[in-house]
Amino acid sequence: MSIIFDVSGLTEFATRLFFAAGLEADKADAVGRYLVEADLMGHSTHGLALAPWYLQGIRDSVMTTRGSYELISDRGAVQCWDGRRLPGAWLTSEALETAVDRAREFGTATVAIGNSHHIGALAAYLSIATDQSMLASVASSSPSGAQVAPFGGLDGVFTPNPVAWGIPTDDQPILVDISASITTVNMASRLKRENRVYDHSWLMDRHGQPGNDPGLLDNGATLLPTGGIDHGQKGYGMALSVEALTQGLAGYGRANKPKGTNAAVTISVYDPAAFGGVDKFIEQTSWLRDACLANRPKDSSHPVRLPGQAALQRKAIAVRDGVELYPGISEGLQAEAKYYGIPFISAKA
Amino acid sequence: MSIIFDVSGLTEFATRLFFAAGLEADKADAVGRYLVEADLMGHSTHGLALAPWYLQGIRDSVMTTRGSYELISDRGAVQCWDGRRLPGAWLTSEALETAVDRAREFGTATVAIGNSHHIGALAAYLSIATDQSMLASVASSSPSGAQVAPFGGLDGVFTPNPVAWGIPTDDQPILVDISASITTVNMASRLKRENRVYDHSWLMDRHGQPGNDPGLLDNGATLLPTGGIDHGQKGYGMALSVEALTQGLAGYGRANKPKGTNAAVTISVYDPAAFGGVDKFIEQTSWLRDACLANRPKDSSHPVRLPGQAALQRKAIAVRDGVELYPGISEGLQAEAKYYGIPFISAKA
Repeated sequence: MSIIFDVSGLTEFATRLFFAAGLEADKADAVGRYLVEADLMGHSTHGLALAPWYLQGIRDSVMTTRGSYELISDRGAVQCWDGRRLPGAWLTSEALETAVDRAREFGTATVAIGNSHHIGALAAYLSIATDQSMLASVASSSPSGAQVAPFGGLDGVFTPNPVAWGIPTDDQPILVDISASITTVNMASRLKRENRVYDHSWLMDRHGQPGNDPGLLDNGATLLPTGGIDHGQKGYGMALSVEALTQGLAGYGRANKPKGTNAAVTISVYDPAAFGGVDKFIEQTSWLRDACLANRPKDSSHPVRLPGQAALQRKAIAVRDGVELYPGISEGLQAEAKYYGIPFISAKA
Repeated sequence: MSIIFDVSGLTEFATRLFFAAGLEADKADAVGRYLVEADLMGHSTHGLALAPWYLQGIRDSVMTTRGSYELISDRGAVQCWDGRRLPGAWLTSEALETAVDRAREFGTATVAIGNSHHIGALAAYLSIATDQSMLASVASSSPSGAQVAPFGGLDGVFTPNPVAWGIPTDDQPILVDISASITTVNMASRLKRENRVYDHSWLMDRHGQPGNDPGLLDNGATLLPTGGIDHGQKGYGMALSVEALTQGLAGYGRANKPKGTNAAVTISVYDPAAFGGVDKFIEQTSWLRDACLANRPKDSSHPVRLPGQAALQRKAIAVRDGVELYPGISEGLQAEAKYYGIPFISAKA
């Protein structure tokens, strides 16, 4: 039986839960809001499914609950922060707001954050910039994880190292969110919990053989880089560039061998008004959207879509009709609510 | 029989050839230098193989031979240029130098160029930034070309849309150069000329079937996006982000339906000194290099390599021993030398 929750009620519940667990109000707000945002967009491995893990991180003192980041540098169009293991949702949304302000002044701005806690779904933050007609990227890596091998190698060095792009158009933005590996750790964990395997061989066992069983990851398997066995030098290149952009610029990463949940995040914002102009930018991106949507589909029952299009449709429906959480998430939240002694949200009537 | 050329002699010859064809001295210098640089690095489809096509572009007045770009905007960390169809090698190297200067001041800088002529091999320019211990990216797209379809579609909308990254370490830089399609137009043209086919099915015919025959491109086939039939949404996302970053920011692109050889280029430079510090950046990237090189190889006769490593080795050997051009290139250059009445370079003794 599916349970439908009201979006604002669910957000309020999630915020109360993190506040009860010890996060300061602004941090609890950010974590509640952006985890629910990920669920609304259908990124269900990166939404409230993460809440029990985050709460455990608070109980284990891996996630910092109070205070602000340490400002390492400020050079006009650039800032570098030590995130002090504060919640990634709070750091990332603050960094995007800072970068939007600075991009309005200098044309572009980049904020690099080291030592953040986990940041969830990258695509969830992009509207902070696209709502201001700005182009934005968010890149992330986790120096304490190593599930992706360099192309030609067998042992994990990288995390999936995603990069998301928010591209304004004259209507909804295009929201790209791609990782340097074909699949993610969270997806592999979900399939494993559900005794399922991948439809394709997106993993490589410790001897270099492709495989589709997420259980292989317990025996030294890795997630294949984007491009796979065939042209995985592409994903390898992406992974290296994200490492340099995130941990490199932040000045804190694998070389420091951090333990526990840890992320480096780099946000760049570009103000089209400072380049060829907003109108001309929007003209190009809207033309492109139209060319993609009008493209002759390979399968006539599946018209070509834009990245983010399905997510934004799901969100609009969820805001109107309520959101149905992926199986198991509701039970996890209920247990946490009981632990912290706050009422669990009731289902939508 | 292979012919070996002295590197400085070959560069001088190429420069003289472009000067004789009408390029101003600084433009002829840049085109000669960066085409030869691509050959030295082994990017032989993007080196002097392009010279006859560039020279035809000069004769057809598609490449502008004199003057400078038009400065559309200058906002501190940002500039936008109308490249006036000047040679891409000149525009791109000038833009990288400008971005390095601005990044030193503001921490990061981005130069977007619309309406450039072709720029050759992206990786050839990166040392302008990495020699200054700066992280750099070069992205490019060609709004008059359309050989890559959106994922799920059948008709070309994008060019291969490459992005290159120059990552300084405590020794040689890591030079990433990846495109949003598995293969490139120039590679397909070469295989076709040589009556060869791809080892893998990296093309898709006009009905959506994978294929390996470059001749298919004459019948509406497209280059598959990175990730291929299996996970080509990754390449699709990359292509869209490059379109926004290049043509979008430049404010000139597909929506303007430009004819002839035309490129948009966007260069971003990040000064690690303005973030967490150069030493800390180099510590991370050097650690990463070591971790990749020490990785247990899938094939024990092929140790894991870094992007750019083989190219820099080839370059060092070519500088010392001379460079051997890919078959056919020398003949093309000889014909052009005859046309412009300049002596062809003699082979190295």
